[in-house]
Amino acid sequence: MTETERKFLVKSEAYKKQAHTRKRIVQGFLNTDPRRTVRIRIYGNTAVLTVKGMSNETGTTRFEWEREIGLKEAQALLELCEKDILEKTRFEIPVGEHLFEVDEFHGLNKGLILAEVELKHENEPFEKPDWLGEEVTGDVRYYNSQLSKQAYKTWKN
Amino acid sequence: MTETERKFLVKSEAYKKQAHTRKRIVQGFLNTDPRRTVRIRIYGNTAVLTVKGMSNETGTTRFEWEREIGLKEAQALLELCEKDILEKTRFEIPVGEHLFEVDEFHGLNKGLILAEVELKHENEPFEKPDWLGEEVTGDVRYYNSQLSKQAYKTWKN
Repeated sequence: MTETERKFLVKSEAYKKQAHTRKRIVQGFLNTDPRRTVRIRIYGNTAVLTVKGMSNETGTTRFEWEREIGLKEAQALLELCEKDILEKTRFEIPVGEHLFEVDEFHGLNKGLILAEVELKHENEPFEKPDWLGEEVTGDVRYYNSQLSKQAYKTWKN
Repeated sequence: MTETERKFLVKSEAYKKQAHTRKRIVQGFLNTDPRRTVRIRIYGNTAVLTVKGMSNETGTTRFEWEREIGLKEAQALLELCEKDILEKTRFEIPVGEHLFEVDEFHGLNKGLILAEVELKHENEPFEKPDWLGEEVTGDVRYYNSQLSKQAYKTWKN
């Protein structure tokens, strides 16, 4: 019931050529509080409800509980979610022993591309592809829950 | 996916003699916002996750979506909930064609007893037992989500 992952910016679009799958994701939040995030996600014909807790000090590991739900139920629950609903395209890219997930955001987060890799434990080594940029693990601004409230296009830096 | 119910204060303990069942309920909230309440409830060996939306103008009808979850999952999710966790004893009391649920609250809400009856539609008639007091349908203070934040014992009136 915990997930351990590291998150990175992406330097080039080279990941697209290596992607095995590509799918559209629509998601909203019933709570964006990082201590108890509640997410409704639809991808293709599948929908899940996910609860996440606060991450550990390094931002690598978070409590996560997930349950598949019906598509119509998910659509009804999305109606209740906080603004804004996030839309993104996810690419799955095997690199060495690991699977990277690269998310291209749309709408108000257009321009933002994030890569994540799930690890068995915090210090597990993994191969870094050329297109991988700066690490942003634990930076709350890059949590999807925060991107739904404070979109990438509105950032000042 | 909507529930229609009316809520009342309780004038006497006469309901206890008419109760068919009595069970302890422990519940917490992953969100107490009345527009998107997310509740984790354990009663006996059963646990459910419930999402409720905003009620209609009269406060009678709310969107409600519920899913049974594992007991251990529920206990882990309760750890993530906002303070305080609510504890209450629920009595089920058949009255005429309807089932009343009477909740005796414990802890910081001790002294508060609420009765609810679920209806097929807002104007459905139902028999009122002698112990039924003032109607508080739609009064947000009596929502369980609000009682977990602003306990009955702290009310100033």
